[in-house]
Amino acid sequence: MSTKAYAAFAATEDLKPHIIERRNLDAFDVFIDIDYCGVCHSDIHTARAEWGVPNYPVVPGHEIIGRVLEVGPNVTKFKVGDLVGVGCMVESCQHCHSCDEGLEQYCENGFTGTYNSKRSKFGGVTYGGYSENIVVNEDFVLTIPENIDVKAAAPLLCAGITTWSPLRHWNVKAGDKVGVIGLGGLGHMGVKFAKAMGAHVVMITTSAKKGEDAKLLGADEVLISTDPKQMEQHNYSFDFLLNTIPVKHDLNPYLGLLKLDKTMCIVGAIEPIDLHGGILINKRRNVAGSLIGGIKETQEMLDFCGKHNIVSEVEMIDIQNINQAYERMIKSDVKYRFVIDMKSLK
Amino acid sequence: MSTKAYAAFAATEDLKPHIIERRNLDAFDVFIDIDYCGVCHSDIHTARAEWGVPNYPVVPGHEIIGRVLEVGPNVTKFKVGDLVGVGCMVESCQHCHSCDEGLEQYCENGFTGTYNSKRSKFGGVTYGGYSENIVVNEDFVLTIPENIDVKAAAPLLCAGITTWSPLRHWNVKAGDKVGVIGLGGLGHMGVKFAKAMGAHVVMITTSAKKGEDAKLLGADEVLISTDPKQMEQHNYSFDFLLNTIPVKHDLNPYLGLLKLDKTMCIVGAIEPIDLHGGILINKRRNVAGSLIGGIKETQEMLDFCGKHNIVSEVEMIDIQNINQAYERMIKSDVKYRFVIDMKSLK
Repeated sequence: MSTKAYAAFAATEDLKPHIIERRNLDAFDVFIDIDYCGVCHSDIHTARAEWGVPNYPVVPGHEIIGRVLEVGPNVTKFKVGDLVGVGCMVESCQHCHSCDEGLEQYCENGFTGTYNSKRSKFGGVTYGGYSENIVVNEDFVLTIPENIDVKAAAPLLCAGITTWSPLRHWNVKAGDKVGVIGLGGLGHMGVKFAKAMGAHVVMITTSAKKGEDAKLLGADEVLISTDPKQMEQHNYSFDFLLNTIPVKHDLNPYLGLLKLDKTMCIVGAIEPIDLHGGILINKRRNVAGSLIGGIKETQEMLDFCGKHNIVSEVEMIDIQNINQAYERMIKSDVKYRFVIDMKSLK
Repeated sequence: MSTKAYAAFAATEDLKPHIIERRNLDAFDVFIDIDYCGVCHSDIHTARAEWGVPNYPVVPGHEIIGRVLEVGPNVTKFKVGDLVGVGCMVESCQHCHSCDEGLEQYCENGFTGTYNSKRSKFGGVTYGGYSENIVVNEDFVLTIPENIDVKAAAPLLCAGITTWSPLRHWNVKAGDKVGVIGLGGLGHMGVKFAKAMGAHVVMITTSAKKGEDAKLLGADEVLISTDPKQMEQHNYSFDFLLNTIPVKHDLNPYLGLLKLDKTMCIVGAIEPIDLHGGILINKRRNVAGSLIGGIKETQEMLDFCGKHNIVSEVEMIDIQNINQAYERMIKSDVKYRFVIDMKSLK
């Protein structure tokens, strides 16, 4: 079926309106009318070919919220009218060890991304959420709690789960001292989640202003990472560090903050980072990475958000302003995530 | 009391004979007549001021084997004539969380090294095993099994425990695929221990010759790290990687070898290393460090060596040849550890 979407056709072009072909509904598929779509840095990297040349046209968007319009005959998990979400994945092999464990993001055969991915089952390329609607297998559709601010729930599906998953995996619990490094789309969710889990949350930032902002979001303390005296005072005191810095940087000043056997988890920087072996060795410290989260834990996060009334801080835009939004994101000029009101497309 | 030792007096000087002052026997002390002392790269780094200017004169040596000559009145663990060892530590605070856990190497107040360390309890500086004898608190003295080749047991006290501790901490067990990166003093012990623990051991090296040598030590397979095709075949297949490379290097080619959630542990390189965030993120991989081992686990390792008849591969030297041995070690011209026969000093 043909549907309206916003797409990039080349790395040098702005996104503009386009008609794309969605696949027809399969027996296990859910057809979703999209209400809101969050805007992730990955959208920019992909549309602008910063992660390699994508399959143009690219329709970005993997923080999707909408209502079920139609379901395939074998769908059991959803019915017409349900409030649902779609995150970064729409297919995986569902039979490897990782998929069996509910860790589809680490699928040994590679998951299918919500956009710019070759579809393993139906052929063609996936198109994301900057669109009127989307067709997704029910196993990759999430239930959104009706009680939270729905438009602000969209970023939970990428920024949210990306920070939730490592906090859970490394077992952050009440009383732990947790540092969140960097305050952006990911960092602000890290602060909210760690706080809701009962941790003593320290915002670690270069900017006093961001520190103040983090306190409004729930951070208990602020540590200015460029102040050696402050860093020294917090030396060897953290149970977990969530590093959301999205660019190449030096890990070493932060690693000394960790206690014996504790972990810094990187969720932002896929670029090279600088690491000093001695700092790991002298307190058996760990540096790890973590990628979004599995479907099961994404649902757990959404249920937690419903219970604790947690959403992202968002600025709403119309789809016609997407290119200006990209420019502002590149300058970090957003608190903390743009969300597109997809009514503007219709 | 005064005793004969080999010491360096300045970074530019060779080690030469010297008379040093040992502290007198305290109530909990053991006086050890030294039979053998292994030669560790740390000895060179310290004597030559490569890790900062040491407290000259430096008497290196922290792989010490000897017999108990005398014990203080309160000593309960050892008696005259016992075959004993001393490793890298001779004191720690013994009341912090790490010490309580038997992890004196991570003592929160800093352990006292066997040489070139300021003594916390008795004042002065510690002098190591290139010496006729040594005085050590009984809590830092190990029992050496009488059934193994005693001279070849000396390197167990540093090279041995440095590889044993991470293999145990990351729970290497029968059937695990374990890679040992680098074949030297540490790597050759890593191969022997991992094999004895029942793992499938892969020697990862740039040198086909070293690969053959590793097979003689028990490695099941050899992986030449400079061959991209071989590396690709082993991609995503390892349960643990023990990285013994002692110099700055690029971690990234090795990290792809790890399965989901698995760890590469660095025990050699205290220098900066290059690390790519994306490789950690895409399979939730870990990079960690590990420092020697605690006294309790060192004794466990020695008992295991007694049971499985494991010792190091050594080349014996007289103390008068220590400076030539240093030069050969710098060229990696030793299989795999020099041990000084301390009778040569007497």
